[in-house]
Amino acid sequence: MNSKTTTTTETATATESASGTQLLSAQNVASLFNSVDAFLFDCDGVIWKGDKLIDGVPQTLEMLRSKGKKLVFVTNNSSKSRGQYAQKFHSLGISVSQDEIFSSSFAAAMYLKLNNFPTDKKVYVIGGEGILEELRLAGYTGLGGPEDAEKRVELKSNSLFEHDKSVGAVVVGLDPYVNYYKLQYGTLCLRENPGCLFIATNRDAVGHMTDLQEWPGAGCMVAAICGSTEREPIVVGKPSTFMMDFLLQRFEVSTSRMCMVGDRLDTDILFGQNAGCKTLLVLSGVTTQSTLQDPSNKILPDYYTSQVSDILELLGR
Amino acid sequence: MNSKTTTTTETATATESASGTQLLSAQNVASLFNSVDAFLFDCDGVIWKGDKLIDGVPQTLEMLRSKGKKLVFVTNNSSKSRGQYAQKFHSLGISVSQDEIFSSSFAAAMYLKLNNFPTDKKVYVIGGEGILEELRLAGYTGLGGPEDAEKRVELKSNSLFEHDKSVGAVVVGLDPYVNYYKLQYGTLCLRENPGCLFIATNRDAVGHMTDLQEWPGAGCMVAAICGSTEREPIVVGKPSTFMMDFLLQRFEVSTSRMCMVGDRLDTDILFGQNAGCKTLLVLSGVTTQSTLQDPSNKILPDYYTSQVSDILELLGR
Repeated sequence: MNSKTTTTTETATATESASGTQLLSAQNVASLFNSVDAFLFDCDGVIWKGDKLIDGVPQTLEMLRSKGKKLVFVTNNSSKSRGQYAQKFHSLGISVSQDEIFSSSFAAAMYLKLNNFPTDKKVYVIGGEGILEELRLAGYTGLGGPEDAEKRVELKSNSLFEHDKSVGAVVVGLDPYVNYYKLQYGTLCLRENPGCLFIATNRDAVGHMTDLQEWPGAGCMVAAICGSTEREPIVVGKPSTFMMDFLLQRFEVSTSRMCMVGDRLDTDILFGQNAGCKTLLVLSGVTTQSTLQDPSNKILPDYYTSQVSDILELLGR
Repeated sequence: MNSKTTTTTETATATESASGTQLLSAQNVASLFNSVDAFLFDCDGVIWKGDKLIDGVPQTLEMLRSKGKKLVFVTNNSSKSRGQYAQKFHSLGISVSQDEIFSSSFAAAMYLKLNNFPTDKKVYVIGGEGILEELRLAGYTGLGGPEDAEKRVELKSNSLFEHDKSVGAVVVGLDPYVNYYKLQYGTLCLRENPGCLFIATNRDAVGHMTDLQEWPGAGCMVAAICGSTEREPIVVGKPSTFMMDFLLQRFEVSTSRMCMVGDRLDTDILFGQNAGCKTLLVLSGVTTQSTLQDPSNKILPDYYTSQVSDILELLGR
């Protein structure tokens, strides 16, 4: 738990649980609001669900901006680049600049850049177009991804599976077109190309690939490559705080005056806590109140509420 | 190290390494031979490589049989059923009965049988035909496997991925036709069907799917499902000693009078050691002498030699 602001009103209220996690209320919302200069939002399950905007989000974001709060969108979804994300926001009627978006696809490219990964080395991608686009924007040559979706392997005597020896990094993210070709390609690069980096956009077990149900997430593909290579990846998405350095540089707000708003305990809330931010769990995504309050759950946000628009509603009371 | 027989000759020989692992030699081969009633062989990398028999194997097996030794073939490869394995042996000119073969596909079916898995429940398979055939022989209904190789998912709003609620176990083995459909099917069964078992044939990281190189093994697909379900599997193949109960029942030989012969330290040799057998590593498969002797290697066989036929050659001297 980070920087919990405690007032007499709060400690007295019945909405505070034994653990210290508080239900967001008309009593404590102002204290959260006043102690924060930047709100960091996860997207899926917070801003939207699949292609459907969650009720009251545009009005809430507008109010926060009008009050001078900085807004940042931090997503583990690597299927889109930042530009593609900005387009998605626009198509849903929310104006967001590309600079306010921090996706794990961008983080993967930035990890390479910060670590002076040579531009004459290539990057093999198990994942979507978003990763390849961010790599291109950062000046790197990506291989694999959607291009290898339909490729098949030949398991015949004397047939050699060839891979590019100049691949110096394998980036693994969510890939609905994962296949044995890609698994073998990534595995060979990591096992045979000296010094080849293994980068995971994130390790989410499942995610809402469709609005009605959850599907295997990047954690599935990343684990597959861990299994075949017996290596552990560098994780650049949440809950790793790798992206926080960029956020700090751009926004010049101390992490103690940031609030991470998300629907996942093990990525969003843990990320916020790892970085020293305040944390607000919304129940509009994958986490239910009973999961939050289960004794086995050790990740406790500072606040929780049903959805983002509660901030607007509670402040307006 | 198990039941190491030490004679003056052996301890004096220069072929004994500091660790106690002995190079098989004309001096120690008789002692191994005389202390063993049953030889357990791994197949790939020991008997054959891909579709190619390793030199001298038929003659060695024939000699062992003629001297009254029992022969057992214990393989983690789940792509074939025991019947299909017996055929492969015959096609290579070696006469082996189905009862002498213990494959991880058979082990998966036997695990269900021993645990009274109800026959009105179904089993979803991420893996090959061998698993489905062993399930059928044990009286179970298998789903998935090769049948789902070309299936694609629809990631559209309002489209629900349906799965069979009567699936009570998911068996995962090596699957060169792994795809997102199968990963989602297995994941949904394990996350949503109450009490659904998660069984792994084995967790080998890689294997010689072709003679020229290694490919991701069952450990890759098993890890993928661990990643999406956040569960750990029951492993029935090596190094788990689950199959040993069947071996003991059939052959009535105490494990201290068995010798496990294999090419992998982390499966074959560990399996032998876990079960209390003597162990002989052959260097005709995935393990090199430098891997064996690397200080980071903690799995030390009793003996090592270049290939199975050395037993015949050394005894004949």
